[in-house]
Amino acid sequence: MKRNLALLTDFYELTMSNAYFKDNKHLDIAVFDVFFRSIPDDGGYAIFAGLESVIEYIKNLKFDEDAINFLRNKKDFDEGFLNYLANFEFSSDVYAIKEGTPIFPNEPIMVVKGPLIECQLIETFVLLSINHQSLIATKASRIVREAKGRPVFEFGARRAHSYDAANLGARSAYIGGVSDTSNTLAEYMFGIPSSGTMAHSYVQSFDTEYEAFKQYALNYPDQCLLLVDTYDTLNEGIPNAIKVHHEVLKPMGKSLKGVRIDSGDLAYLSKKVRQMLDDSGLTETKITVSNSLDEFLIRDLIVHQEAAIDSFGVGERLITARSEAVFGGVFKLSAIKSGDKLVPKIKISDNVAKTTIPGFKQVYRFFDENKKAIADVITLHDEVIDPSKPYKLFDPLHPWKYKIVENYSIEKLLIPIFEKGKLVYELPTLDEIRKHKEDSFETLWKEVIRLKNPHKYYVDLSQDLWDLRQKLVTEHKK
Amino acid sequence: MKRNLALLTDFYELTMSNAYFKDNKHLDIAVFDVFFRSIPDDGGYAIFAGLESVIEYIKNLKFDEDAINFLRNKKDFDEGFLNYLANFEFSSDVYAIKEGTPIFPNEPIMVVKGPLIECQLIETFVLLSINHQSLIATKASRIVREAKGRPVFEFGARRAHSYDAANLGARSAYIGGVSDTSNTLAEYMFGIPSSGTMAHSYVQSFDTEYEAFKQYALNYPDQCLLLVDTYDTLNEGIPNAIKVHHEVLKPMGKSLKGVRIDSGDLAYLSKKVRQMLDDSGLTETKITVSNSLDEFLIRDLIVHQEAAIDSFGVGERLITARSEAVFGGVFKLSAIKSGDKLVPKIKISDNVAKTTIPGFKQVYRFFDENKKAIADVITLHDEVIDPSKPYKLFDPLHPWKYKIVENYSIEKLLIPIFEKGKLVYELPTLDEIRKHKEDSFETLWKEVIRLKNPHKYYVDLSQDLWDLRQKLVTEHKK
Repeated sequence: MKRNLALLTDFYELTMSNAYFKDNKHLDIAVFDVFFRSIPDDGGYAIFAGLESVIEYIKNLKFDEDAINFLRNKKDFDEGFLNYLANFEFSSDVYAIKEGTPIFPNEPIMVVKGPLIECQLIETFVLLSINHQSLIATKASRIVREAKGRPVFEFGARRAHSYDAANLGARSAYIGGVSDTSNTLAEYMFGIPSSGTMAHSYVQSFDTEYEAFKQYALNYPDQCLLLVDTYDTLNEGIPNAIKVHHEVLKPMGKSLKGVRIDSGDLAYLSKKVRQMLDDSGLTETKITVSNSLDEFLIRDLIVHQEAAIDSFGVGERLITARSEAVFGGVFKLSAIKSGDKLVPKIKISDNVAKTTIPGFKQVYRFFDENKKAIADVITLHDEVIDPSKPYKLFDPLHPWKYKIVENYSIEKLLIPIFEKGKLVYELPTLDEIRKHKEDSFETLWKEVIRLKNPHKYYVDLSQDLWDLRQKLVTEHKK
Repeated sequence: MKRNLALLTDFYELTMSNAYFKDNKHLDIAVFDVFFRSIPDDGGYAIFAGLESVIEYIKNLKFDEDAINFLRNKKDFDEGFLNYLANFEFSSDVYAIKEGTPIFPNEPIMVVKGPLIECQLIETFVLLSINHQSLIATKASRIVREAKGRPVFEFGARRAHSYDAANLGARSAYIGGVSDTSNTLAEYMFGIPSSGTMAHSYVQSFDTEYEAFKQYALNYPDQCLLLVDTYDTLNEGIPNAIKVHHEVLKPMGKSLKGVRIDSGDLAYLSKKVRQMLDDSGLTETKITVSNSLDEFLIRDLIVHQEAAIDSFGVGERLITARSEAVFGGVFKLSAIKSGDKLVPKIKISDNVAKTTIPGFKQVYRFFDENKKAIADVITLHDEVIDPSKPYKLFDPLHPWKYKIVENYSIEKLLIPIFEKGKLVYELPTLDEIRKHKEDSFETLWKEVIRLKNPHKYYVDLSQDLWDLRQKLVTEHKK
């Protein structure tokens, strides 16, 4: 059955939209923010991804006849509303942060301004795209960071949460910094380099491991990377691999590119294997390892055990973000038009941190003279910051904690994507996004990106926005 | 871009297949088993799901011109091999356990017997379908079990790992026992009842909560379920809901169907809310709760805190299986034809439990007189068990631990799905699968399904299979 993504929406979006329509409220202009409250794995940053999927979705959002008939049969909906859906045309403004940008809790990473009904209808899809893809991009960037320059290959398709998770997960992982994927479709769709050599079954399908290696070398003399742990890495796999190098590859003027170890004690084995390869003159042969790796294990292998590893294959723990499989982005109403005026809305919570930030907003990133990011400041949408003047940064929860910055530069993070329903954003290529991630990652202090107890990056409110929030809190208390 | 699922395969499947093709080994008949080694969350059982997706995939598996051209451009592949792919026709036998059946570690849950090249090409897709869907079906069954008869609604689309994870996740959750989903597309595609009422934004879009509730009641008098925690559940939400019942619904001859609490202390609030509703005569109004729930929290609410809850909405922790987001199904070669003979293959590991079970196999489930499942026995494919005779069950790791059973009945778990590439299995409806899950779940001892420290269900080997495995281990040692 074909996919009908217009219906990939929580049913309550439709019941609410139908009610808005019947009450003739559906075209009221509203503002919704996408933001998240906490960083997976107690990390210091997340990496934004998923925008391209949102753009594709919005561009193609149509309720076709099948969808309308299906909804009609639910008997919950007004014919006028169904007619509205059948003629749906997206007309809202969308602002978003660029994919690949480090993002932080509580700041808007996407803002939708438009008819209430449109905002509501796209909520579910917007969230699932951003939540999934930012989750994997963030996880990948953590893993790549701990590999300290060694290439990381994304190997997770077989453990992904179905097909899109494999493909969009590979794309997100590539944004996060992996250099390669095992998933052929991810190269076909997104141009991410795909690669791979052999499984244990290949080795087992021959009478001997030597024969398997030999045939592989004959078929792929230029890229001979052998899986050496099917039977016994040190006593069989490596000796057979070395033998194939000398007996098959060398006579062809080729050499053994690498070996992969997929089980056992990777620290111990890699060091032993390195020694055996070096002793046979195979100093250029690379060692790659895989087997339930993540940033914590990679860090241990490299830092604490001086493993002799040149690259890592990372599967299930990356593609599912196993250590924290949920990215908690939410979509919250921040303003609604009444007459000619956009009225800021707030949702109060007993938990101060859960009280929303009202109004139609913008986010600025502040950089010091060395182009290091100092803080993000959430402002009213049209606020102007003049970097030639000192600016007061203060903690929105503890406003007496402040600092005046000078000699800073700023960058507006929320940029226009759709204007009145029209796509105005020129989509970057995937490699540009990946490069943008690398560059913007460089602007973060080491203290922010470290694995344990990272420094909490400042996300502040402008004075005007802070005043607005206080006013609404006080008003509500009355 | 259209999806081209034939390419959703790890690149090494293609490099191996190309090598097999060039060495003219590709049509050698092989047997591969799908099995898993451990149960997520230290549970006592898993629920098998994903078969229907595998069947759909195999039925439609074609390498179209775009795919072939893409692969040709990689320059790794022989033209003969590309030609083979362009004319690919699936010709293998596939056996599988029915969706919805409880499954246990180390037993084959699917067996593919056919040309080596075919087995290899489908590996990635088979695994990702079964791994994802069994993961979610298992998680759902745990959550539903702890809800002890109270309905559980699947609410997770916005936190799913992209679109397929939302849809196939909803399907798997329905197999596992949830009664409803928030995902409209899951009803459109699979007929799973979808439902939902309102978000906080609906309430906020009105000047007052009372007005929002009133308009909702007027639009949906027959199914008025109100979200009561936007501002203050006990001081505003519930009083407003009760007022709407008396002022709007009652005069129409209707009544307030339910209230939903999405934040705060659900145990405390639900009991207070129950009291307030009862005191107003709303004894039939149901209380539903949501907010990062899973089986552990639901158990606490019900068993330890006597919360007054009628149903649960479960989102991110179900749709991502957050507590353990990986289901580790693997695809391992167990036999390969040499001449006329199917030669069993084994992969030895230092870790005894990781040594594979060789040969072309079948699985039988043994039941006692009361139709309770006693053990699964893995046998050679053609072994015959005569239930009129006593049978010796023994622990394959500790064969001196055994027991003779009598008065048992058996069921063959692996049934034919494809025969020589032709689909021979009549697919059950989703409701039949869900019913099969319920029925087969009933055959498990309470000790096997409990949350903490479940009894380890016996998965044994037949004497013949055990002997074969010992023989191969001994041979390999030589």
